[in-house]
Amino acid sequence: MKLGAIEAGGTKFVCAIGNEQGDIFEKTVIPTEHPDVTMPAVYQFFKGKGIERIGIGSFGPIDVNQQSDSYGTIQNTPKIDWVDFPLAKRLADQLNVSVKVDTDVNVAALSEAEWGNATDVDSCLYITVGTGIGAGAIVNGTTLNGLSHPEMGHIVVKRHEDDSFAGACPYHNDCLEGMASGPALEKRWGKAGQELADDEKVWEIEAHYLAQALVNYIYILSPEQIIMGGGVMQQEHLFDLIRKNVIESLAGYVSSPFLSAENIDRYIVPPGLTDEAGIKGALLLASE
Amino acid sequence: MKLGAIEAGGTKFVCAIGNEQGDIFEKTVIPTEHPDVTMPAVYQFFKGKGIERIGIGSFGPIDVNQQSDSYGTIQNTPKIDWVDFPLAKRLADQLNVSVKVDTDVNVAALSEAEWGNATDVDSCLYITVGTGIGAGAIVNGTTLNGLSHPEMGHIVVKRHEDDSFAGACPYHNDCLEGMASGPALEKRWGKAGQELADDEKVWEIEAHYLAQALVNYIYILSPEQIIMGGGVMQQEHLFDLIRKNVIESLAGYVSSPFLSAENIDRYIVPPGLTDEAGIKGALLLASE
Repeated sequence: MKLGAIEAGGTKFVCAIGNEQGDIFEKTVIPTEHPDVTMPAVYQFFKGKGIERIGIGSFGPIDVNQQSDSYGTIQNTPKIDWVDFPLAKRLADQLNVSVKVDTDVNVAALSEAEWGNATDVDSCLYITVGTGIGAGAIVNGTTLNGLSHPEMGHIVVKRHEDDSFAGACPYHNDCLEGMASGPALEKRWGKAGQELADDEKVWEIEAHYLAQALVNYIYILSPEQIIMGGGVMQQEHLFDLIRKNVIESLAGYVSSPFLSAENIDRYIVPPGLTDEAGIKGALLLASE
Repeated sequence: MKLGAIEAGGTKFVCAIGNEQGDIFEKTVIPTEHPDVTMPAVYQFFKGKGIERIGIGSFGPIDVNQQSDSYGTIQNTPKIDWVDFPLAKRLADQLNVSVKVDTDVNVAALSEAEWGNATDVDSCLYITVGTGIGAGAIVNGTTLNGLSHPEMGHIVVKRHEDDSFAGACPYHNDCLEGMASGPALEKRWGKAGQELADDEKVWEIEAHYLAQALVNYIYILSPEQIIMGGGVMQQEHLFDLIRKNVIESLAGYVSSPFLSAENIDRYIVPPGLTDEAGIKGALLLASE
């Protein structure tokens, strides 16, 4: 089956034609401008190509409730030109295909579960730590959504005892994203993460917040695999700091051989897929 | 179909025979003592009654992974006589039936989703706040388990600014359960919750922790319905304190009509079932 896939991001729309095996036949990148500019180029790319369905991994918030009248409509985003834009409906109408939508992080989790570092398990969590912090999950065989899609980057966190930074989240100040995103790092220390690579205190504090988040995700979701990607996780030494902190914090409370000092490096891992995780996940979503 | 059900708790085993509609034909209560004492009485109750399957809602930690060799085996509990006891296997061997096991809170969530206050939705969260704090969830049509079963009562929480209580959790000190369970209340204030009903500060602090937990559960799981039960939630005024605090904390970040001052009293609710939620949920589990 010929499928369409869109990775709808804040700066670009990656569009591709491929199949459910993840083969990509054709791909293009369209800048994210006003929908009146971006969308006609998207329609143009897909038109006349014989695709039957489209899957979209989108920036949010977006309505992911398939029973809802506004399924696939962008919600209250800071990108004001896109607020209330019915992304799925317009594509369905213009191209006469069925359209499925999920969050960018849920679609990346799908991809990792099919082809990446979570292929042997029934549940997994994919976290990205970059400009923002977001996470997608596979639970009971499909992506996790409910009342809305998860917003795992905005959980309440306990401060590191040496940290007086006010936080960088415009909604909550010192939530996880407000304390541990790339921009939070830069605002707290006055330099970008890459320039701080040798400063131990920077990464001790960063690991404190990220490990705390993982501990809460483990207590609440109990994922069988945790994958961490995004720009901040390019600091590879962070992985071991986080792993050590998670083990200490759990204090032996959850019974699993993976939550031991010997095995945790197989439990908390970087992504198995690189650039194409999003677009391949969107193909999978289309094929469902 | 004639089904067996067990609500396996720390003080008693409730055993029943019923059907998948939740009708209970016969019931008995057996004290939780040493397995050598309790279990023969359990076998005796079910023997010769013509049941085909048994469902168990159990205290934990217990292995809930159906692929595991130790499925249905009690794990590292403070009830040392029960550590490593293969509850499901022994029942299956003694009674020659198939046995399904889940946590007491997951089974209560199943019951609420079928007959209680979460019948109109596809996902829900059932939280009990009493001697301990635990929660079960229905996600994508079935109970949420993964690497292990969730332990949502033990998440990391941010302290209330006026609270210097060290915490009552033997594993983590000041996790959610350590700060907000019934015993935590009693230890912090020197009196049981019921005797503190008129003290506003007590409930402001209690609501701070419980609302914070709900906010994190919402960001991570996005349940369509939240049900709160257990001894501490008998203080009915707590519901409105928690609801108000949740709305303030979310700061409008999650788009849903239920997360508004007008509708939140339909979103965060007490249980619809009373005494028989556990045992009826175990019947449902058996019928799956």
